[in-house]
Amino acid sequence: MGLPKNSGLELHSRWPQGKNNLISDVPGVRVGHVTLKGGDVHTGVTAILPHGGNLFQDKVAAGYAVLNGFGKSTGLVQIGELGTLETPILMTNTLSVGTVSEGLTEYMLEQNPDIGVSTGTVNCVVTECNDGGLNDIRGLHVKKDHVREAIAAASEDFSEGCVGAGTGMQCLGLKGGIGSASRLVAIGEKDYTVGALVLANFGAAGHLMIGGDHIGQRIKEQMEQEGGAGLPKDSKDKGSIIMVMGTDIPLTNRQLNRLSRRAAIALGRVGSYMGNGSGDIALSFSTGNHMPHYGESPLEPFHMLRDDKLDPVFEAGAEAVEEAIISALYHAEDTHGIRGSHSRCLREFL
Amino acid sequence: MGLPKNSGLELHSRWPQGKNNLISDVPGVRVGHVTLKGGDVHTGVTAILPHGGNLFQDKVAAGYAVLNGFGKSTGLVQIGELGTLETPILMTNTLSVGTVSEGLTEYMLEQNPDIGVSTGTVNCVVTECNDGGLNDIRGLHVKKDHVREAIAAASEDFSEGCVGAGTGMQCLGLKGGIGSASRLVAIGEKDYTVGALVLANFGAAGHLMIGGDHIGQRIKEQMEQEGGAGLPKDSKDKGSIIMVMGTDIPLTNRQLNRLSRRAAIALGRVGSYMGNGSGDIALSFSTGNHMPHYGESPLEPFHMLRDDKLDPVFEAGAEAVEEAIISALYHAEDTHGIRGSHSRCLREFL
Amino acid sequence: MGLPKNSGLELHSRWPQGKNNLISDVPGVRVGHVTLKGGDVHTGVTAILPHGGNLFQDKVAAGYAVLNGFGKSTGLVQIGELGTLETPILMTNTLSVGTVSEGLTEYMLEQNPDIGVSTGTVNCVVTECNDGGLNDIRGLHVKKDHVREAIAAASEDFSEGCVGAGTGMQCLGLKGGIGSASRLVAIGEKDYTVGALVLANFGAAGHLMIGGDHIGQRIKEQMEQEGGAGLPKDSKDKGSIIMVMGTDIPLTNRQLNRLSRRAAIALGRVGSYMGNGSGDIALSFSTGNHMPHYGESPLEPFHMLRDDKLDPVFEAGAEAVEEAIISALYHAEDTHGIRGSHSRCLREFL
Amino acid sequence: MGLPKNSGLELHSRWPQGKNNLISDVPGVRVGHVTLKGGDVHTGVTAILPHGGNLFQDKVAAGYAVLNGFGKSTGLVQIGELGTLETPILMTNTLSVGTVSEGLTEYMLEQNPDIGVSTGTVNCVVTECNDGGLNDIRGLHVKKDHVREAIAAASEDFSEGCVGAGTGMQCLGLKGGIGSASRLVAIGEKDYTVGALVLANFGAAGHLMIGGDHIGQRIKEQMEQEGGAGLPKDSKDKGSIIMVMGTDIPLTNRQLNRLSRRAAIALGRVGSYMGNGSGDIALSFSTGNHMPHYGESPLEPFHMLRDDKLDPVFEAGAEAVEEAIISALYHAEDTHGIRGSHSRCLREFL
Repeated sequence: MGLPKNSGLELHSRWPQGKNNLISDVPGVRVGHVTLKGGDVHTGVTAILPHGGNLFQDKVAAGYAVLNGFGKSTGLVQIGELGTLETPILMTNTLSVGTVSEGLTEYMLEQNPDIGVSTGTVNCVVTECNDGGLNDIRGLHVKKDHVREAIAAASEDFSEGCVGAGTGMQCLGLKGGIGSASRLVAIGEKDYTVGALVLANFGAAGHLMIGGDHIGQRIKEQMEQEGGAGLPKDSKDKGSIIMVMGTDIPLTNRQLNRLSRRAAIALGRVGSYMGNGSGDIALSFSTGNHMPHYGESPLEPFHMLRDDKLDPVFEAGAEAVEEAIISALYHAEDTHGIRGSHSRCLREFL
Repeated sequence: MGLPKNSGLELHSRWPQGKNNLISDVPGVRVGHVTLKGGDVHTGVTAILPHGGNLFQDKVAAGYAVLNGFGKSTGLVQIGELGTLETPILMTNTLSVGTVSEGLTEYMLEQNPDIGVSTGTVNCVVTECNDGGLNDIRGLHVKKDHVREAIAAASEDFSEGCVGAGTGMQCLGLKGGIGSASRLVAIGEKDYTVGALVLANFGAAGHLMIGGDHIGQRIKEQMEQEGGAGLPKDSKDKGSIIMVMGTDIPLTNRQLNRLSRRAAIALGRVGSYMGNGSGDIALSFSTGNHMPHYGESPLEPFHMLRDDKLDPVFEAGAEAVEEAIISALYHAEDTHGIRGSHSRCLREFL
Repeated sequence: MGLPKNSGLELHSRWPQGKNNLISDVPGVRVGHVTLKGGDVHTGVTAILPHGGNLFQDKVAAGYAVLNGFGKSTGLVQIGELGTLETPILMTNTLSVGTVSEGLTEYMLEQNPDIGVSTGTVNCVVTECNDGGLNDIRGLHVKKDHVREAIAAASEDFSEGCVGAGTGMQCLGLKGGIGSASRLVAIGEKDYTVGALVLANFGAAGHLMIGGDHIGQRIKEQMEQEGGAGLPKDSKDKGSIIMVMGTDIPLTNRQLNRLSRRAAIALGRVGSYMGNGSGDIALSFSTGNHMPHYGESPLEPFHMLRDDKLDPVFEAGAEAVEEAIISALYHAEDTHGIRGSHSRCLREFL
Repeated sequence: MGLPKNSGLELHSRWPQGKNNLISDVPGVRVGHVTLKGGDVHTGVTAILPHGGNLFQDKVAAGYAVLNGFGKSTGLVQIGELGTLETPILMTNTLSVGTVSEGLTEYMLEQNPDIGVSTGTVNCVVTECNDGGLNDIRGLHVKKDHVREAIAAASEDFSEGCVGAGTGMQCLGLKGGIGSASRLVAIGEKDYTVGALVLANFGAAGHLMIGGDHIGQRIKEQMEQEGGAGLPKDSKDKGSIIMVMGTDIPLTNRQLNRLSRRAAIALGRVGSYMGNGSGDIALSFSTGNHMPHYGESPLEPFHMLRDDKLDPVFEAGAEAVEEAIISALYHAEDTHGIRGSHSRCLREFL
C-alpha cells in the first residue's frame, strides 16, 4: 500500500499516487513473497512478475543501470544486449543467488518445454542484497523450491517491510526490507503508471532523510541516549539496494536504461551517498512493448514515447523509488537477529 | 569562496570545508575565467588547471560519468580508455565547443612542439552547457583566443556566479553559473582535499532544495505573486550541468569513475531529476597519480587508495558538488538577457 | 566503386555487393570530400550525409562502438543517450576536430534558424585520424569553410583512396585513406543494403591480410629488399580507424550499437590487433528509422528488425567494413609527405 | 599442450609459445575439469585458478569485455566496479549456472569462515555456453559438488577438447570444447606470459578459418559429399564463447578491460562474425597485481605497465585466444549426442 496517508511523512511529491500505491498498479504486475523467519533465520525470496502470461514467450522491454556494481545480481548482461526481460525478477540474499537461479531455471524449464530443445536457453534475472547482519546467511536457508512458491504467491496485493527477500535487510541504521509505491502520469489522453519496488538494505545510521527532513540524525541521537539499542557497530554506507521500476508506458531498452539511472536521484534524497560497499542496481521494464519469442514477421512494429516527453516519467520514477524506500522502512518491524544483532524500526521514532 | 558562512543556508554537511572552500584548495589546482557580457552577450570561457606544470608531459589520473548524455562535451572517450587527463578542462557554451577545442588545440601545440611531429596528438577536453536562454548563443561570440586568456587568468583565487562559462547560465528557475566548494578528508595521518567546480544550468523552476528545505517552491510562488518576473516560460528540467571533482588522494581511473557517479547524489539533493534535456556530466581527476608522457621504465609505480577506504571520499565528493551548485546560485546576479529574458538570483529570496 | 572486380583480390565474401559497392548504395546516402594537397599538406575533410533532407529536423537512428578509445571523435556521448544522428558525419585530421566542429556548427545554424532560439542546440559528429606522418598536421590547414564545401560536394558517386580526410592517412605500412563497400541483404521479400565507409589509418607494417592471405609480410620483405623505401620507422599498430556503417534496414540504437561492434571482426581479418595507439571507432546509422525533431504525437511508431534476424546484417556489415578497408588501400596512391616521409600503395605490390 | 607442432596448421603467430602452450604457463595458474559423459549426457565443469592461495583473501586484478551480451555469465558486474577477481573462474553449461554458483558459494564459505560474519559476501564468477545441441541440457546433470571436484582436480597439466565444460560444445560446424595456448612477451629484461583458455561453442558451419585458410568451406563441402553426417541443421552463428586471458604482467582493471576487447580480433580470424545468438565474453586477470582483502595501509602500492608498452600484450593476447580456439577444435573428438545429433572433429579433415 506504499506509504499510508496517515504516516505523517511528507515527501513533497509532484505526481499522484496510483490506486494502491504499489508497483502492481501497473496493469498485470504481481509480486509474491516467501518469508523465512525463526531463530537466526531472517531471509526469503521475492518474485516480481511483469505480466500474467508466459514471460519467455512474451518478453517485455527492459533496461538497467549499475549505479554501484559492488553486487552479485545475475542476468543484467543479456538485458543490456537484447533489451528484454524473459523471466520474473527474483530477489534474495547474496549467498543464495545460485540457489535461486537454479530454482528459477527449473521453473522456466517446466513452463517451456522448448527451452534447450528446439530453442535456446533462458536468461534468469536474480538480484540480491546481503542480509548477513541479522540472518544466518552462511546457513543457506533459501532452497530452490522457494522460487516456485514465491512465484505461485504472486498477487496484486502484497506485503511490504520484513517480508520475502526483505526479511533480514537493514537500511540507514534501521530495519529495512521491501517497499513499493507508484505514480500516475498522463501522456496524451491516457493515464499510465510508473511503479517501483525496492529491496532496501543500504546506508549509514544517522543519514536518513525524509522529504528533506534529516530525521536520521535525531533517531541516531535518540538511540544513543537510550543506550545504543539498535545502533549498528559501524557507520559505513554498506549493504545495497535493488530498485525495480515497472511501467505500462511504451519505452525502449535505451529509455529504460535512462529511467533506471534516475534511481540515483531517489538515493540522494533519502540519505545515501552510494557508499563503496553498496551494490546499487536499478532495473526497469515496460509492459508497453512486448517482444514475442517466436515472430512471424522479421520486422516488429512498436511504439516509443518521444524522448522530449520523458520528463514526467523520469520524475515520477524517481519519486516512486524514493517513496518505496521510505515505505520499506515504514513497514518494517523491530527485529532481533543472529549474534545478538538488533535492528529497530522507523515507526518507533515517528 | 564557496558558500559563505553567513549565507544562512545549512547543507547538513558531514565533512569540513577546505581553506577557501574552492576546488583550488586541492594543491596546484587553479581556475581562470573569461567573461563576455554586454547587450545580448552573456557567455564566456572557464579553464580548470589540475596543476601548474605541463599537463601533456605530466598527465593526471582521470575518470568520468555520463549521468545524462544529452550533451556535447569532448574528450571523454579517451579519458575512458587511457584514464588520464592531458589538457586543462575547458568550459563554454554549447555552440562554442568547436571554437574552444580549436583554441585549446592551438594552445597545446604552442606548449608542446613534439605533438604531431615526434609524438602523437592531444586529447582536448571541452565541456559545455547551453546558455541560449539569456545569451545570443547563435552569435558565436566566444573566440579561440579566449581559451588562452582563460588559461592565463588561472589562479587559486577565482570568482563564482555569473563569470566565465557561467555568465549566461540558468538553474532551477534562477540565475545559475559557476560554483565551487571543497571538503577535507583524513586518510591515515594525512589530510587530503576533495574539491568541486560546477557549471550549473539545469533544473526546473520551483524544484530547488537546499539542505532539505524545499525553498524553490516558495520562491516560485513569490515570483508568481510578484507578477511572474524571472519565471521561465516552461517548467522543464532542461539545460545541463558539468560537475568537475579534483582531489590529491591517489585514485585510479576506475575509482575516479566511481567518484564521478556520486555527483548524482548531489543532483538529487538540490532538486534535479536529471530531466531528458539535461546533459549531466561528471568528470574527476586526481593529482595524486601522475602519468608521465615519456617514461623511462615500462612499469610505472603508483599508489591507490583501497576501495574499502573510499566512503569518506565519495561522501565528501557528493557534498562538495552539492555545495558548489548552491554556491553557483548564491553568487549569481539578477540578469536581463536576449529577447527580454530575465533570470533572478537566489540571494533576492533569502 | 569499392574493390573492383578485376583487382585480383579475393575476400571470400558471402553477401553480394550493392550496385556501386559504396555506402551510397543505401538510398539517400551521399559522400563529399575536400582534399588539401600540396607541399607538406596532405589532409582534408569528408562528409557523410545519411539523407538529403534536413537531418536536424529529421534525425536517423544511430549507434556506435568504441573498440579502442584512444581517439578524439566528438558527438558520440549524445548518440549513446538519444540514439539519433542529427548532423552529417564529418571526418578530418585529429588536430582539426575543433575547427571542423566550429564549421559544422555554423552550417547547422544556417540551415536551422530555430537552433538556440526556440529549440535546443545541436550535436555535431566529427571523427578523426592522425595524418601527422605525411601531413603538416601542426599547420592546421583545414579551415571551417571546408565543412560547407565537403557537404556541398556530397554525391552518390564519390572517390576513394587519398581524398578528403583520407588524403594523408597511412595503414598497415602502406598508404591508407577512404574506402567504401556495400552488401545486399534480403529481409522478407525486400532487398536492403548495408554499406560501409572507412577512414583507414591503422596497423603495423607487414600485418596486412587480404582474404586470409598474409600479403603484408611479403610486401614488407619486398620493401626491405628494395632498400626500405616506404617502410615506417617503427612497427607499432598506431594511427586509428573510423568505420561508418549505414543501412536502410529498420534498426534501433541498441541494434546499431550491436552492428558497430562487428567492425572488430573486419579489423581482425585485415591484420589489426587494435594496437594501443589506435583509436578504433565504429558508428552506424539506419535510414529505416527516422525521428522527427518536432513531433505531434507523444508516441512514435516504428519498426525494428527482430534480433534473431540480425545474423545477415552483422555478417554483411563486417564484410562491408573489411572490403572498405582493402578498398581504401587499393585506391590509394604513392605519396611523399612531410619530413621526407614516404608511403607506398598497395597496387604497386599486386 | 595447445596446438601441437606437428598439427600441420600454421597460424602466422608473431610471439613465441610458452613452455607448455597452455594458460598454466602463467606461474601459479591451474585448471581442473569434471567431465560428465554417457548416454545423452555430454557436459561438465571447468575451473581456472589464478593462483594456489586463497583467492578471496588475495584477490587478483581483473577486467572483461562483453563482445556480445547474449549470455548468462555471472560476476562480471562486480569485476567492472572493483577490478578484482576473488574466486576461481568456473565454466559450465548455460542451464547449470545457478547450480555451479551455489556450489562455488559453498566452496568459498568453507574456505573463508569470515564471509557473511565479520566481512561481506563473495562474488562468484561462473561462465557458460549452451551445449544443448549434444547434451541433455534440460536434465541438469551438473551437481553442485562437481564444483569442488573441478577445483580439486586443478593442475598445471590439463586436457583440452571434449573435457569439462567443453564436453558437449560445438563450434563452427565441428566439435568444439576447451582449448588453451600461451605466448611469451619480454618487458624490460623480464619474460612474461600471456595465456588463454577458451570454451568454444560458436560459429556457423563452413566459416572456419585457420591462419587465413578458409578450410571451413572445404570441410562443409566434404561433409555434404559424404551425405551430410555431422552437418548442423542450420547455418546460424549461434552458441557462444568464453575467452579467459591470464598474465603475470602487472596490468590494471582498465588495461585488462582493454586486453579483453582484443579477443574480438581472434574471433574475426577464426571465422566468427559474432552472430546474434552468440554470447561472446572475454575475461582477463593479472597475477602481477594482487589486492589483499584485508589491508593494513589505506594506500596500496602497485605497478602498472605503461599503456604505450601494451602493443605486444594485445597482440600476444589475440594470438593466444586465436590458437586456443583452434586447439579446442583440434583436440575435440567425434561425438554422437542427444536426439541423434552428431558433431565431427577437425582432425578428421586435416
